[in-house]
Amino acid sequence: MTAPARPDDCLFCKIVAGDVPAEIVRADETTVAFRDIHPQAPTHVLVVPRSHYADAAELAHHEPAGLADVLRAAADIAEREGLTEGYRAVFNTGAGAGQTVFHAHLHVLGGRSLQWPPG
Amino acid sequence: MTAPARPDDCLFCKIVAGDVPAEIVRADETTVAFRDIHPQAPTHVLVVPRSHYADAAELAHHEPAGLADVLRAAADIAEREGLTEGYRAVFNTGAGAGQTVFHAHLHVLGGRSLQWPPG
Repeated sequence: MTAPARPDDCLFCKIVAGDVPAEIVRADETTVAFRDIHPQAPTHVLVVPRSHYADAAELAHHEPAGLADVLRAAADIAEREGLTEGYRAVFNTGAGAGQTVFHAHLHVLGGRSLQWPPG
Repeated sequence: MTAPARPDDCLFCKIVAGDVPAEIVRADETTVAFRDIHPQAPTHVLVVPRSHYADAAELAHHEPAGLADVLRAAADIAEREGLTEGYRAVFNTGAGAGQTVFHAHLHVLGGRSLQWPPG
């Protein structure tokens, strides 16, 4: 299936393309991962698909294998960063849930005690 | 690919099988969704794959399409429950992240203002 056209104003598309700098921690054929600029935990990485989809459901619908790649990247990052106690993986969908960039991205948090509820 | 053998003591396998009651809100060929017994928001639903995998990464590795089904179910539930402001979708991996049942499950929360950080 074809990804939607890349919006010219998408920050994460620009990071994927290398046009905006980011602290990239991992990249593969389908995903790029970089540190959140406002980290909420010792490890706080965003994993994004290279293709542009507005949110996780769009990604799941159009590229189910790409969604799996995002979760696999998260697990790999957790291992590399030594998150042996575990990690939390969060997709926000919609402004009311805290989504500020409308390119699907998974927050991966770990390295400290994580509270409940998740926000 | 074949799912790991179903552990006899897995609570969510028992809910999927109908052996333990739960307030089921949605079910399809590959997923079952039910309300969290300790809800943290007006909508707080758990979406689980019918197949037993310990966590999201295992699900992504063995059944990438099943992971996508879980996220699609979440979006469908959000629509049915009128979460027009958005929703948060959370996978906890490991006890240190708050995972208490080791059958992959996605927390879907909405219906109130969601704070940051996510725990």
